[in-house]
Amino acid sequence: MTLRVGFLGYRFMGKAHANALARLPMFFPDAPEVTRAVLVGRDEEALAAAADRLGFEKTTTDWEAALDEIDVFYNLAPNYLHPEPTIAALERDVNVLCEKPLAHDLDAAERMVEAATESDAIAGIAFNYRFLPAIRMAKAVVESGEIGDVRQFRGRYLQDWLVDPDAPWSWRLDEDLAGSGALGDLGAHTIDLARYLVGDVERVSGQLRTFVEERPEPDGDEAREVTVDDAYTAQLAFENGAMGTVEGSRVAPGHKNDQTIRVHGTAGSLQFSLERPNELAVKEPEQRGYETRLVTDETDPYVDHWWPPGHVLGWEHAIINENFEFLRAIDRGEPYQPNFEAGVAVQRVLDATVRSDEATKWMPL
Amino acid sequence: MTLRVGFLGYRFMGKAHANALARLPMFFPDAPEVTRAVLVGRDEEALAAAADRLGFEKTTTDWEAALDEIDVFYNLAPNYLHPEPTIAALERDVNVLCEKPLAHDLDAAERMVEAATESDAIAGIAFNYRFLPAIRMAKAVVESGEIGDVRQFRGRYLQDWLVDPDAPWSWRLDEDLAGSGALGDLGAHTIDLARYLVGDVERVSGQLRTFVEERPEPDGDEAREVTVDDAYTAQLAFENGAMGTVEGSRVAPGHKNDQTIRVHGTAGSLQFSLERPNELAVKEPEQRGYETRLVTDETDPYVDHWWPPGHVLGWEHAIINENFEFLRAIDRGEPYQPNFEAGVAVQRVLDATVRSDEATKWMPL
Amino acid sequence: MTLRVGFLGYRFMGKAHANALARLPMFFPDAPEVTRAVLVGRDEEALAAAADRLGFEKTTTDWEAALDEIDVFYNLAPNYLHPEPTIAALERDVNVLCEKPLAHDLDAAERMVEAATESDAIAGIAFNYRFLPAIRMAKAVVESGEIGDVRQFRGRYLQDWLVDPDAPWSWRLDEDLAGSGALGDLGAHTIDLARYLVGDVERVSGQLRTFVEERPEPDGDEAREVTVDDAYTAQLAFENGAMGTVEGSRVAPGHKNDQTIRVHGTAGSLQFSLERPNELAVKEPEQRGYETRLVTDETDPYVDHWWPPGHVLGWEHAIINENFEFLRAIDRGEPYQPNFEAGVAVQRVLDATVRSDEATKWMPL
Amino acid sequence: MTLRVGFLGYRFMGKAHANALARLPMFFPDAPEVTRAVLVGRDEEALAAAADRLGFEKTTTDWEAALDEIDVFYNLAPNYLHPEPTIAALERDVNVLCEKPLAHDLDAAERMVEAATESDAIAGIAFNYRFLPAIRMAKAVVESGEIGDVRQFRGRYLQDWLVDPDAPWSWRLDEDLAGSGALGDLGAHTIDLARYLVGDVERVSGQLRTFVEERPEPDGDEAREVTVDDAYTAQLAFENGAMGTVEGSRVAPGHKNDQTIRVHGTAGSLQFSLERPNELAVKEPEQRGYETRLVTDETDPYVDHWWPPGHVLGWEHAIINENFEFLRAIDRGEPYQPNFEAGVAVQRVLDATVRSDEATKWMPL
Repeated sequence: MTLRVGFLGYRFMGKAHANALARLPMFFPDAPEVTRAVLVGRDEEALAAAADRLGFEKTTTDWEAALDEIDVFYNLAPNYLHPEPTIAALERDVNVLCEKPLAHDLDAAERMVEAATESDAIAGIAFNYRFLPAIRMAKAVVESGEIGDVRQFRGRYLQDWLVDPDAPWSWRLDEDLAGSGALGDLGAHTIDLARYLVGDVERVSGQLRTFVEERPEPDGDEAREVTVDDAYTAQLAFENGAMGTVEGSRVAPGHKNDQTIRVHGTAGSLQFSLERPNELAVKEPEQRGYETRLVTDETDPYVDHWWPPGHVLGWEHAIINENFEFLRAIDRGEPYQPNFEAGVAVQRVLDATVRSDEATKWMPL
Repeated sequence: MTLRVGFLGYRFMGKAHANALARLPMFFPDAPEVTRAVLVGRDEEALAAAADRLGFEKTTTDWEAALDEIDVFYNLAPNYLHPEPTIAALERDVNVLCEKPLAHDLDAAERMVEAATESDAIAGIAFNYRFLPAIRMAKAVVESGEIGDVRQFRGRYLQDWLVDPDAPWSWRLDEDLAGSGALGDLGAHTIDLARYLVGDVERVSGQLRTFVEERPEPDGDEAREVTVDDAYTAQLAFENGAMGTVEGSRVAPGHKNDQTIRVHGTAGSLQFSLERPNELAVKEPEQRGYETRLVTDETDPYVDHWWPPGHVLGWEHAIINENFEFLRAIDRGEPYQPNFEAGVAVQRVLDATVRSDEATKWMPL
Repeated sequence: MTLRVGFLGYRFMGKAHANALARLPMFFPDAPEVTRAVLVGRDEEALAAAADRLGFEKTTTDWEAALDEIDVFYNLAPNYLHPEPTIAALERDVNVLCEKPLAHDLDAAERMVEAATESDAIAGIAFNYRFLPAIRMAKAVVESGEIGDVRQFRGRYLQDWLVDPDAPWSWRLDEDLAGSGALGDLGAHTIDLARYLVGDVERVSGQLRTFVEERPEPDGDEAREVTVDDAYTAQLAFENGAMGTVEGSRVAPGHKNDQTIRVHGTAGSLQFSLERPNELAVKEPEQRGYETRLVTDETDPYVDHWWPPGHVLGWEHAIINENFEFLRAIDRGEPYQPNFEAGVAVQRVLDATVRSDEATKWMPL
Repeated sequence: MTLRVGFLGYRFMGKAHANALARLPMFFPDAPEVTRAVLVGRDEEALAAAADRLGFEKTTTDWEAALDEIDVFYNLAPNYLHPEPTIAALERDVNVLCEKPLAHDLDAAERMVEAATESDAIAGIAFNYRFLPAIRMAKAVVESGEIGDVRQFRGRYLQDWLVDPDAPWSWRLDEDLAGSGALGDLGAHTIDLARYLVGDVERVSGQLRTFVEERPEPDGDEAREVTVDDAYTAQLAFENGAMGTVEGSRVAPGHKNDQTIRVHGTAGSLQFSLERPNELAVKEPEQRGYETRLVTDETDPYVDHWWPPGHVLGWEHAIINENFEFLRAIDRGEPYQPNFEAGVAVQRVLDATVRSDEATKWMPL
């Protein structure tokens, strides 16, 4: 069976996933065959150029029509465009991979999960960092019991592209279009990793801050209001008794894509940083300090598909590994993780974080 | 004038401050002359041995009597013993250096500040990390405006001496004697550095957790209840609009004395770690990433008293620098920072953190 | 014009270059069109499987015949197979990209350069690390004069795949087939970077060591002699007066692919490590310490072809960048660097290092 | 017995050793009692001020006379002043601790060893880095066999105080007074650590370079010739079959006191850096990567004399530990390591390195 894939969106994420599809045959011979069938967007000219570069057979500006011609729908659009096309796809039993966060608000996210539940199709959410070899190894270390029961989690995700107060306005800075700012964009990843490595969150206490309250329109002189957070912090209490802190910022000078994760258990600790994604630092009981492992051995997760030891992978490889798992699940009719339940679980934490900030108190989930 | 100094306490902190006094003449010729006059404690035998090793002229078990024979009183006793002897000293116009946190509860701390206010003596609190060259440099970088206005602060202080559930009970694990656990012991330092580098805290949201609820008595078989936190987390909102997170743990495997501080401003960032105390990482506007500075140049704070460039200092040097500043302030009749106002300001944050945890909401200060 | 490409070799390097060709259209729209025309090897079955996976149109076991059907020949075979097919290709004016080291001995390398000189085709050597963004930035920093005149170079390349004395024998361990061991395999890269960043080598003093003198045949019980070095060290004197050390090892436990380069000039220093290839540490005059730059900004070399800031690249991206430059040079009829002159210059250092080791004295170049 | 100690020299090293003596009673109660009896120098005014600050009872400009009044002689003078006073002391059976390198030339060093052999006194050389807890742990790891048989050693010692071509001339830049430059000053330490951790050197190949050939007199306008090396490199072959590289530089921008040591064995590796002296990185067989150990546990070498875990030591603590060992050996009449044999062994390597550089060939030892 050849899977016909359609994308809604052709910018950064469109390129990342098109690259993934293009590379599967050489590196994942077990992946199902795929055609890049339809690319959907609004600007016909840009769309045509993108389709050419990303290897799509055709384009359309009508996402609804596209759904009839494909087996798999990648929703790579801005957050507020996640719900409607995704639900429509699932209603047609078209499989969906939706970028994160699941939606721009919790209500829409809940409707998406409902649609997924009622559909025969697979609904996955693109928490791509779960597919980094080092994160997979971290998960294995936690599950093996090597570091005991997890007591503390610490995650941060720092960028600096909004440090300049003249950096232009975009949909990512509008609450109606994005839902939230650093919280939904960066925090969604960090909170998913918290759930992946530690477990469900029981309650949250959050703090959001907008440091630059208006920014220039990209192609104009006028200032436009920023209605989302530039940075957030949150404390987490997990159902299993662990505690944690998470935070994210788009205004942290010197940090480009610094998602750093730390886990402390009763018997050991873990550390990971996205700017050095091939490394996992592990403190096991018989060790005094952290051992820095280069996660590039053939026996490490996914590495046998790639290069010999020490030939490091980049950011994009997690996306490719993710596409392999997602498409294979479709091909085999097997469940896929992270699915929309995982997506809405994160969305509930995002939502509770915002409400906690407004109410200045902890919010249960 | 030779200052007669008396210590209450002769363990870790007693040794650290006695060492400081002993080293001043060689390294700080400008420091006033000092005699280690009286060492105060309860166990006469241990006291005599300590006095001999630490270079004290005499010992006594009566702290009140000792106050009549000294010019400067170092209160190095457990937290619950900070208030009464300290207040008595100040009432006699004996200068006081009190270990942190200022007291075991806020009420006592407020009384201590009142006594300091009414006294002609100097009352200092031993936030020793302010006297590390790298922290002094961090302060200078912030004040120079090089990193702009501070927006975010992140501090953690991790130790692991309580990871073992059989690590014995001590006064540090009892709420009545210590006030709190990781919060008061470690958090006091971190919150002081937050205030030093960023400014006053406006409100706090905290979370405390006790993972091991009872521990064996040191010299017995019986278990005794742990009534303080093993770990805490907190979110801070500063009066100047900055936001922050702080946390501390005594159960973080692989971390011995890891106080890590990060500051993000509108124009740059700073990073410091106590396990590498001779380094400060600075991201200034004209730089892309952090520059790691070895803070051992002759022109760096206090370094001209010590060794040539690259000959690194240790933990104890901050204590010696601190003693120099404290004793010189007494000698010159000049104000000293950090004083008891700084101490109580931190105590208010500690207190509000505990109340926030209980009330599950933000607490104003 | 579509370039027809043929590969001799289909293992690690075959996969790396096939991946590069496959990815050019999406990431380097300016690259010429390419067909993966012919894959050449000896084992027909393995060859067919490889051709299928790597996207080649056909296969042959006759490299000479293949040369008539292609415009570009990638010589990815073991070192002793570099000379003859490469020279044959150049004689037919077929462009050649040859893996490093240029040959298994200096005589053959000299003959290859001669063939290149007489050919109308382009002859490139695959010193792929020149095409890492961080190395390109290092080159730009040196050329800008920011670190002044280079005085010292230090390079090491450490792996550990031969630590186990039972790791099997392969052609890489045979002098006749490989020329040398760690020296030719790893040192070729390091010496090329030394030449790239500092300049020509005037004389060398070397030391080679074989720690494990025989190893088991891969599929047999018998031991076979190891006739190359497990590790080498060398001192370099450059023509411009700079001095340096280089070394390589296949028996350095804990190092997988650790090529670390350091340069000291009259005004600053540089540091790079291949296990963290997205980073360059720079010490410029106005800085006290090294600034760690994440070389992932849009304005950094090649990065505009890839992902947004902070989304790190992997080892393979240097190969793709290299293929782009090589094929574009062919397409445009422009000279290509590094060419066979660069290859033989390194070969002369390799050769002099071996002779130096034997003669226990410095060897001029 | 109280040991009467006399110092020749009162600058950097004088201060370092005086501090050590002053601190022994508090931290090493087992150390013998010591009086700082006589300080010897040439400039009476500076001498008097130094004696006052360093705690010496009296001063003299006549080292020969001083020898009659002391039990222990610390030779902290410039290298060319090591031989005569040291030999005179040993002839009087006065114990000697001599700074490194042992002498300014090999002939003098050999005479010093001869004097030590014939004396009843103890003759120690101040290779202070052997007394760092992390180096002691490194030695223990090697001796335990945990990393197997050592195959490779790599040491560098980088400083940058001569980067500025206007940095003034001093005795350290004169061959007659110092013997050599970076080689004798920095290389002596590194070569001693090579011998300590690996074993005796069999032959050496060296390279010396003077980049700045004259420098201004400290208090004058005139330029004076630099007759020693600014930087050196060397390859080592050890008697046990191991190989190594060492190098040193006083012109490495951004490096203040960076002595970095790496050891690779058949089963593991070690790494140490003097700018982070509390850390040792160890790669043992059952580990994939290096474990970074903070060498501050009570059970670590010398640490029980100092502070609790994580309260890091500085550069000077190695000197204090060294003084303890040296004086205790005298007190107990036990042999001391490193002794003059260790000093001359290093001197022979220094000497052979210079001769190797001149002859452009390996030199046996």
